[in-house]
Amino acid sequence: MAKRTTTRSTSRPPIGNALVGQSGGPTMVINQSLVGVILEAQKAKHIPKIFGARHGVAGILADDLVDLTRHGAVHLEKVAATPSAALGSVRKKPTREECLAMFDTFAKRDIRYLFYVGGNDSAETANIVLECAREIGHPIRVIHVPKTIDNDLRVTDHCPGYGSAAKFVAQAFMGDDLDNRALAGIKINVVMGRHAGFLTAAAALGRSRPDDGPHLIYVPEIAFDLKAFERDVKAMFKKHGRCVIAVSEGIADKRHVTIAEKLSKNAERDAHGNVQLSGTGALGDHLSSYVKSFMPKGTRVRADTFGYLQRSMVGVASERDQREARAVGVDAVKLAAKHESGTVVLVRAKGKGYRCTTDITALSKVAKHTKSMPRGYMNRAGNDVTQAFLDYAAPLVGKLPVVEHLRGF
Amino acid sequence: MAKRTTTRSTSRPPIGNALVGQSGGPTMVINQSLVGVILEAQKAKHIPKIFGARHGVAGILADDLVDLTRHGAVHLEKVAATPSAALGSVRKKPTREECLAMFDTFAKRDIRYLFYVGGNDSAETANIVLECAREIGHPIRVIHVPKTIDNDLRVTDHCPGYGSAAKFVAQAFMGDDLDNRALAGIKINVVMGRHAGFLTAAAALGRSRPDDGPHLIYVPEIAFDLKAFERDVKAMFKKHGRCVIAVSEGIADKRHVTIAEKLSKNAERDAHGNVQLSGTGALGDHLSSYVKSFMPKGTRVRADTFGYLQRSMVGVASERDQREARAVGVDAVKLAAKHESGTVVLVRAKGKGYRCTTDITALSKVAKHTKSMPRGYMNRAGNDVTQAFLDYAAPLVGKLPVVEHLRGF
Repeated sequence: MAKRTTTRSTSRPPIGNALVGQSGGPTMVINQSLVGVILEAQKAKHIPKIFGARHGVAGILADDLVDLTRHGAVHLEKVAATPSAALGSVRKKPTREECLAMFDTFAKRDIRYLFYVGGNDSAETANIVLECAREIGHPIRVIHVPKTIDNDLRVTDHCPGYGSAAKFVAQAFMGDDLDNRALAGIKINVVMGRHAGFLTAAAALGRSRPDDGPHLIYVPEIAFDLKAFERDVKAMFKKHGRCVIAVSEGIADKRHVTIAEKLSKNAERDAHGNVQLSGTGALGDHLSSYVKSFMPKGTRVRADTFGYLQRSMVGVASERDQREARAVGVDAVKLAAKHESGTVVLVRAKGKGYRCTTDITALSKVAKHTKSMPRGYMNRAGNDVTQAFLDYAAPLVGKLPVVEHLRGF
Repeated sequence: MAKRTTTRSTSRPPIGNALVGQSGGPTMVINQSLVGVILEAQKAKHIPKIFGARHGVAGILADDLVDLTRHGAVHLEKVAATPSAALGSVRKKPTREECLAMFDTFAKRDIRYLFYVGGNDSAETANIVLECAREIGHPIRVIHVPKTIDNDLRVTDHCPGYGSAAKFVAQAFMGDDLDNRALAGIKINVVMGRHAGFLTAAAALGRSRPDDGPHLIYVPEIAFDLKAFERDVKAMFKKHGRCVIAVSEGIADKRHVTIAEKLSKNAERDAHGNVQLSGTGALGDHLSSYVKSFMPKGTRVRADTFGYLQRSMVGVASERDQREARAVGVDAVKLAAKHESGTVVLVRAKGKGYRCTTDITALSKVAKHTKSMPRGYMNRAGNDVTQAFLDYAAPLVGKLPVVEHLRGF
């Protein structure tokens, strides 16, 4: 179990209203957490009213709230199954002054419980609010409810939202590998992840045959070397007559210069002194041009950038991810009754079979900073995942569609 | 019913082997057609053996065939449910000389039936083979089995493969619209389609509320005007505080210059005499820059290019599309027994409710040329679909996941 670093309250939970908000990039299951909070708070005798803040802290600052106290379960279950943030989200990181201003809303609405669903920036916001509360002696309890598709929150075993995004990426690579078998060539797919490679690594989860792609996987945690990449691609193409490649958008060289930026400079130099427009497709296009430069003329080279679909596509969510996202919302309310404040974390049981429970830890342990993928999840060459990663991630994604290759082919 | 322009054979079908191949860009359901051909040919007494050509005409030319005569139904059903072309595909358009060379393989393997699954280029290949056969007096029957995600084949009501790609696009826009609600801004999604707008138009199929996106839809059939686009975007942003836009990759101005090319030139002029690398993300990035140029500074503008996932993603196929793709494969074998040669088409029954049957028409009617989206499927302003399009396309996609907005929000 995660070490509890929050103070357990021995007395009965204080009576007061709850406020819930969503923050940061949405996920396919963040509404499960929202609905978990609402349904559990509706049951709690010490919480007379539940408010939702429109667009997170922006709504709190503007007192732009929705009363959720009487929203029915049938309606809420449908909301829970809907991707993206039903309350609206926000990228705003409030200043200390703004955090203090939120206490006007808290006072006006008698808010004693704040539930904030988001990533590490949202945990930081929650932490600043908590620090302000302590300074001014306000008794509000602040609970951060975790979500990210990047899976980069500290302490927790994994983040709700990751399993579904990982399922999208796995299914996308399964299909794209089949496509690449049909029309052989080199295919580069750029996956979300500026600093953490968990989502890109998930590209490997759908592999079932030894020659299934992706054949190469590159993550931001490992310095990307263009020469090594060239060797890798040539070797895989020689072996399979084709090559499917997964790269994180944030891959960078050993001096932490992103490859998108680096190749953009190369392109500038190599052609006619021209610079490339930055954009969503830039890394894929640059890598594609680079691969064309060293492969025999006529080799089919294509690139795709998966983009926002990874976090928003309807009909793809992982069932376990949905259940866990719900659980962290429900348990946030339960833990708020017992503890002062904190962030909900998932703790995976050791041993065979997958089992996860929730716990709570201090906001300061999760706020601001992020987690990288353990080095042991990638092979020595830094161009593919290890069994350790597959063991870690497969249960979060759950069952993938079965694909079958024609016998004798 | 489509007018039959093939010759109906009154005698018994000739006894001889069958050869099946897949060609062109794969779809999510092209293996349904393949398996339809195989299972039906396995049942046909006049077809002793069934061969599959690896990578279409390339496999025929190289006599690189797989014997499919004894492949079992359980295995084949799994193959059928797998996206992409299980036999491998090919982009090769054979010359007349190469077509003549195929008859060596036909003679060696006693091929009397050729089933070729593909789009209009594949129909053209089939047609050239047929013309060669007539010239040299070879009795082979050539049946083209339709597939495309672009839905641009002539005569047929719609193409197997389209419904599933359209479902992907619809679900992608449903999710992306929810994402855009949560973090408001302008979002451009580039959908496959160089000449036909059917797939881009499918972006509208998931809308359920009046303010659901996409709020603007642009297709290649209607001249794209940058000034009109600017007015459209500003108006929608004023109305909704956000704007989700669907554009076909092939949108072009009234002089048929693609917008990707046009904006690339503008970018060159506007900045420092620089040209942009062409690439998959180019149109999205260019449009995004263009939108930023006329919107207030700080407006969130993003672009995604859906890419190959539209035709290959696992787990997304439309059930009706799967059934119809199977049916055209099965019926290709049945029709080959009755008719000389031709292409299988889907005929939609007039009146209420959706019902489609198969028929056969001459290869020459489908080969080479493509179909555009009827003008009546787009509104007068040319920036959204009409009810006529929704009525046409919705049954092909089938039931979409239900999404729910939080009440009071």
